[in-house]
Amino acid sequence: MAGESARSLGKGSPAPGPVPEGLIRLYSMRFCPFAERTRLVLKAKGIKHETVNVNLKNKPDWLFEKNPFGLVPILETSKGQLIYESPVTCEYLDEAYPGKKLLPADPYERACQRMLLERFSKLSPLAFKYLLAVKSGEDSSALKAEFIEKIGEFEQILAGRKTLFFGGDSVSMIDYMIWPWFERLEFFQLPEIICVRHAPKLRRWVEAMKNDPAVKATVTDSQTLQGFFELYVKNSPEACDYGL
Amino acid sequence: MAGESARSLGKGSPAPGPVPEGLIRLYSMRFCPFAERTRLVLKAKGIKHETVNVNLKNKPDWLFEKNPFGLVPILETSKGQLIYESPVTCEYLDEAYPGKKLLPADPYERACQRMLLERFSKLSPLAFKYLLAVKSGEDSSALKAEFIEKIGEFEQILAGRKTLFFGGDSVSMIDYMIWPWFERLEFFQLPEIICVRHAPKLRRWVEAMKNDPAVKATVTDSQTLQGFFELYVKNSPEACDYGL
Repeated sequence: MAGESARSLGKGSPAPGPVPEGLIRLYSMRFCPFAERTRLVLKAKGIKHETVNVNLKNKPDWLFEKNPFGLVPILETSKGQLIYESPVTCEYLDEAYPGKKLLPADPYERACQRMLLERFSKLSPLAFKYLLAVKSGEDSSALKAEFIEKIGEFEQILAGRKTLFFGGDSVSMIDYMIWPWFERLEFFQLPEIICVRHAPKLRRWVEAMKNDPAVKATVTDSQTLQGFFELYVKNSPEACDYGL
Repeated sequence: MAGESARSLGKGSPAPGPVPEGLIRLYSMRFCPFAERTRLVLKAKGIKHETVNVNLKNKPDWLFEKNPFGLVPILETSKGQLIYESPVTCEYLDEAYPGKKLLPADPYERACQRMLLERFSKLSPLAFKYLLAVKSGEDSSALKAEFIEKIGEFEQILAGRKTLFFGGDSVSMIDYMIWPWFERLEFFQLPEIICVRHAPKLRRWVEAMKNDPAVKATVTDSQTLQGFFELYVKNSPEACDYGL
């Protein structure tokens, strides 16, 4: 039942039992960018965990008992504590577990990461709309122009900071929070948007992220992501188990 | 220029100068519920600050240099650091300043407060829509029913926790984050929604909040709020200075 590459649990499946002592459980979906944030943090901090994949196109009833929004990621502890909303799960893991802290200690630097996340949260739905338009063969030129403009703000932020990553010269929380969408841009063959000519700093960041061990450990190959996406936009109940 | 009850700065006004050493500046609007969150935290922690009110119906150009979204609240430090987005400003103040911590120390309890805020963030736009419908004389019965149902979730949360406040038996961050909308419900004469019969725990919480010193220090009288709201829905550039 559990496992990063296990088939997802759908409607009618029994709710998973209690989480064993010494472990934390992640309710995930193999291709969900929000759940990928939590997976990145779990890997980056080396936290012992188990994964339960959920079928988001055929949701089990118990999902809504774990998260009223019926979404992943959700964390469950061995005490039965439930934590949902991707930024909340990531901050929880960073605070509750020892090891390298992914959020900086300085209050202003922490605020900067949180503000950047808010800005990015307005960009990610646009990326999705754009991908959808491209896939469905609709005219996507206006969405593309808007997207390039917004992505340009992130290029300027990196240029202004003069650092390799968004929080400094080493990878930190904000990089993991925004990476899943850039991973998908790459794989959906839209690299011209973040090419060296348009966005040299962002390009350099993408290359650095690709070499991060947590990113390497969670990456999904381009063909699988595309296969998933095609089933997902058709609302297929098989989408979440694509390739298994 | 500065002061909690000073007239707001609008288009064409010069940008305020640097923030004096030892102070923090809040860009605010007297009737904005989001800025009220930050005002509550400033008062609750006794942080020495100055206030610059901004005319949100006739925004100065410099507002967008301080916050790309062109919204309040914004904090500015004497080092010229800028912090925006109301939850980010409040966490910043709690982390950067000494005194009573408004967010709990336990990572799970902190996560609970953040999850509750996410749930509330889906309720507050509904409250605004409902008030707007009431004010404009439209049929608001469907919005009212939806709102009562959603408010019911917060009654259940309090009942489940068995505490007076949302974070425990004393006031904490989450109470200040959601209070401004309850203050407005009260003043817009909609107390039947959170009456003793429908929501006894929420009613008890409202009464406890009214006795909180920070709430008392930031409260706006009902008549003034109504006067503001009437100008605000008409997009009047005088709305933000109502009553001055």
